[in-house]
Amino acid sequence: MQPAGAEPMLHGGNLDAARKRFPGAPEPWIDLSTGINPVPFPVPELPIEIWSRLPTRSEEEALLAAAAIRYRVPNPEIIVAAPGTQALIQLLPRLAPKSDVAILGPTYEEHQACWARQGHRVSLVNDLDPSIRADVVIVVNPNNPTGRVIPVSALRAVATELARKNGLLVVDEAFIDVLPEAASIAADLPPATIVLRSFGKAYGLAGLRLGFAIAETSLARRIRVELGPWAVSGPALWIGKAALCDAQWLAATTARLESDRQRLDAMLEAAGFAMLGGTPLFRLARHIEAIKIVERLGGNGIHVRAFPGEPQWLRFGLPGDEQAWNRLSAALLD
Amino acid sequence: MQPAGAEPMLHGGNLDAARKRFPGAPEPWIDLSTGINPVPFPVPELPIEIWSRLPTRSEEEALLAAAAIRYRVPNPEIIVAAPGTQALIQLLPRLAPKSDVAILGPTYEEHQACWARQGHRVSLVNDLDPSIRADVVIVVNPNNPTGRVIPVSALRAVATELARKNGLLVVDEAFIDVLPEAASIAADLPPATIVLRSFGKAYGLAGLRLGFAIAETSLARRIRVELGPWAVSGPALWIGKAALCDAQWLAATTARLESDRQRLDAMLEAAGFAMLGGTPLFRLARHIEAIKIVERLGGNGIHVRAFPGEPQWLRFGLPGDEQAWNRLSAALLD
Repeated sequence: MQPAGAEPMLHGGNLDAARKRFPGAPEPWIDLSTGINPVPFPVPELPIEIWSRLPTRSEEEALLAAAAIRYRVPNPEIIVAAPGTQALIQLLPRLAPKSDVAILGPTYEEHQACWARQGHRVSLVNDLDPSIRADVVIVVNPNNPTGRVIPVSALRAVATELARKNGLLVVDEAFIDVLPEAASIAADLPPATIVLRSFGKAYGLAGLRLGFAIAETSLARRIRVELGPWAVSGPALWIGKAALCDAQWLAATTARLESDRQRLDAMLEAAGFAMLGGTPLFRLARHIEAIKIVERLGGNGIHVRAFPGEPQWLRFGLPGDEQAWNRLSAALLD
Repeated sequence: MQPAGAEPMLHGGNLDAARKRFPGAPEPWIDLSTGINPVPFPVPELPIEIWSRLPTRSEEEALLAAAAIRYRVPNPEIIVAAPGTQALIQLLPRLAPKSDVAILGPTYEEHQACWARQGHRVSLVNDLDPSIRADVVIVVNPNNPTGRVIPVSALRAVATELARKNGLLVVDEAFIDVLPEAASIAADLPPATIVLRSFGKAYGLAGLRLGFAIAETSLARRIRVELGPWAVSGPALWIGKAALCDAQWLAATTARLESDRQRLDAMLEAAGFAMLGGTPLFRLARHIEAIKIVERLGGNGIHVRAFPGEPQWLRFGLPGDEQAWNRLSAALLD
């Protein structure tokens, strides 16, 4: 185990910083620094009431019913809607007594930051072992940025151990929507397990702020109480429901993303990258001159995700249209 | 002081429950059970990026700059945006050590519920006395539902006392937007004071989920850290900024609400109500047959706010159009 670090956190999607760093870059910027689907679910027209009045319980129930079908969860009552998965990541460390927390890393850094901030003892671990000495185990599955997928059976073994000592397994399935359904542990939730599901990434609507926790009834109730009433906006309830019900859109999107990620892999390999992994929503690649490539892409108005601790790694989101593909291709070969 | 009660909480805006209780009532229901402006700020068309990408820091800064001008706060850094004031009411009790909390009541019940849930000792008090024996004092100003306004000078005296003992004054200004500017303590914030400002009520966009905390720098920073990144949706940042910048709309709205609340008072008095108070966004009135009137209004598809502890009280929001005025008038005289 390595001790939890205290480096300032770097997030994708920070175009403000990119614009400052490359003031002469052409607009519009192409933001490939996140794993957000660049072709969003089409936003339907919203009745004015969705904006004007407080969200109702029946609207929330309709969203949860749609989420239950989409995530194959038998009982909507174990699903809690939140204004983004990040709000849940902030909240979970407040619900547990002071714990030894093991995070399978390297991964999305907010888990570590939020648990450490609430006074828990946090370690990063490289492997998932059911005999792990921790009260809380956190797995991002598939992992961001490596794309590593932990099989449900292995997660179940850890959950069983943790349940025996009153522990907790957190499985952050932020990027799982476009993977085969069997990859998710939500459909047959083990005891002592919380699953986090992000809405904005696969559906390309990160600005909407919508995410879900799936957990046994008593824990789901605690999360709901901590979030309080009207936690999710009317537009998020409405659009989230419409999107989660649209199986056809998701199937078409999954097919497109798979084909696009093959195209991106080929383009990166042609530019001398070694592919390390990823998901259909983002690709992790290594290049000995990654730092220089960030500069070159930045000068061309293309923002990608670098990793200070792994200077040869770059993470690429998918371009959203032919112009973006062409600009990326030209800048890579520049 | 009376001990904090543990009754189930009743909120305005719960049309689901009203529909269940009065299944034969005509649609559309008229919801007068809240203090939300029924004529909302017109929602501008949103660029797709506002939905699709993560909200940026520069968008948040633009909103906070607009809020600083609107609330006459000299430094935008002491303003924190949240997904609704309720999210802040949930959060504040987690930031204070176990405290004696005095709430000027009767008032909006979520303050009491949230502080009690986090293990604080909560009392309701009837008067605000600078020598109050409490670590945390909470004042809803103007009060909901009574409309009582505590002068800024009295709040300042309490804040000064609380600052001396490391305490905290929370001033919830949810309904203050349409009162004269001098009513708000935000423009000249005393030490040890947090002001909460609701966006959705005066601007009629409660579904958007947007509210603000105004507090000294170190406390503002703590709130920001607890909320975490991307706490407010892209649409809320965008629409909130547009609305807070529009002084003309707010002036016209303030004038209309003042005239409408006079019209409502006259209508209620003609129906035998005694006016108890309120703000231009809602009116509190007493009637010996209030319980029967709730039934009669409900049967006519009109939802108002009753108070189980004060069975002669009813709170009325303002009707939003002539049809609503006419239906209310007819139902009151039925």
